[in-house]
Amino acid sequence: MPDLKQERAVQTRRRLLVAAAELFDQFGYEGTNVADIVKRAGLTLGALYFHYGNKQGVAEAVMNSQPQVIEPLLESEGLQHVVDITLVWAHRLQVDPLLRAGVRLAVEQRGHGMSDATSFNDWAAIMTEHLQIARDNGALRSGVDPEVVARFLVGACTGVQLYSQLVSDRADLMDRTCEMWQVLLPGIVSEEARADIVIDPARRGGE
Amino acid sequence: MPDLKQERAVQTRRRLLVAAAELFDQFGYEGTNVADIVKRAGLTLGALYFHYGNKQGVAEAVMNSQPQVIEPLLESEGLQHVVDITLVWAHRLQVDPLLRAGVRLAVEQRGHGMSDATSFNDWAAIMTEHLQIARDNGALRSGVDPEVVARFLVGACTGVQLYSQLVSDRADLMDRTCEMWQVLLPGIVSEEARADIVIDPARRGGE
Repeated sequence: MPDLKQERAVQTRRRLLVAAAELFDQFGYEGTNVADIVKRAGLTLGALYFHYGNKQGVAEAVMNSQPQVIEPLLESEGLQHVVDITLVWAHRLQVDPLLRAGVRLAVEQRGHGMSDATSFNDWAAIMTEHLQIARDNGALRSGVDPEVVARFLVGACTGVQLYSQLVSDRADLMDRTCEMWQVLLPGIVSEEARADIVIDPARRGGE
Repeated sequence: MPDLKQERAVQTRRRLLVAAAELFDQFGYEGTNVADIVKRAGLTLGALYFHYGNKQGVAEAVMNSQPQVIEPLLESEGLQHVVDITLVWAHRLQVDPLLRAGVRLAVEQRGHGMSDATSFNDWAAIMTEHLQIARDNGALRSGVDPEVVARFLVGACTGVQLYSQLVSDRADLMDRTCEMWQVLLPGIVSEEARADIVIDPARRGGE
């Protein structure tokens, strides 16, 4: 029964990922060791080494799981999808340890000798794809380059959450994210499409 | 001769600040200790404790010196001043240890138990002031709020340099900063003022 074995491996990886994220979120990379991770996950060091190689391997997996946390929650497409990513991300950064740890590690990674842009590039690729849909639907102003906007948005969101964390522990992150769109939309979206784009904290979804 | 004594204090503070910045830039906060800082500065531990209290005190001074590094280099005002801040900042982040250390500490500070938004808020205040001049001169689109744009820009620049650092060690930061303005300007600036705003890496200044 190879399916059962595979299913068990998925579960094991998931348990390690969540346990590591909870610790990274609270104590940071330096403040977390592999023994604590496997203890919290109720697994063995062998399992961690087998599935992730070492602490840095788990940390990279946590950083790069961001789109898997957010994307399944979204149903929109085009520019609205890009807006929704930022709103759901802003909300879940306050409640989801896996996302919180992923962003914390992505921001602080250089201090720990890591340099992995995968999570940034993955988000930029997803946003580019949806901005291309928007452009093909005539929703973008002429001359707006989906790739340029996507690349900028990924950087901008990263910095906006960092600023918000310092001043309010992210309590004002949703407001700041809506403000971001208030600044950006007039330069990006075509007149005709403007009324269709909803910038509303309620789109953050449940929980 | 109280002036001479005051002058000496300014010099001492400056030597400590620069020595600390060079070490923080290269080794980070955890990798730097006060003994190394005073050795590099050719001063005593007593001088460091007298002027900055402790390592965190020096680190906060380094973080919060950013506007003093950039502002004296600028002569423009209004929206062009805001653009120039970002261009000079993007360039000097590649060559100036004090600025590099300031930004590194500001981004990584939470990992070291610090939470000081002063540098962010100082930049936001400076940008707000110049965006208000721009608004009063009719250079902004109607409805554009100087404070909202300034707050967003500070976060956006922070994240754009972080993304750039991960993919290119900041080699592409100037390009990304120009791209940022390409995305932002159409939504911010009035039609009449558009032609007066120069987005050009050459405005980064000498060195």
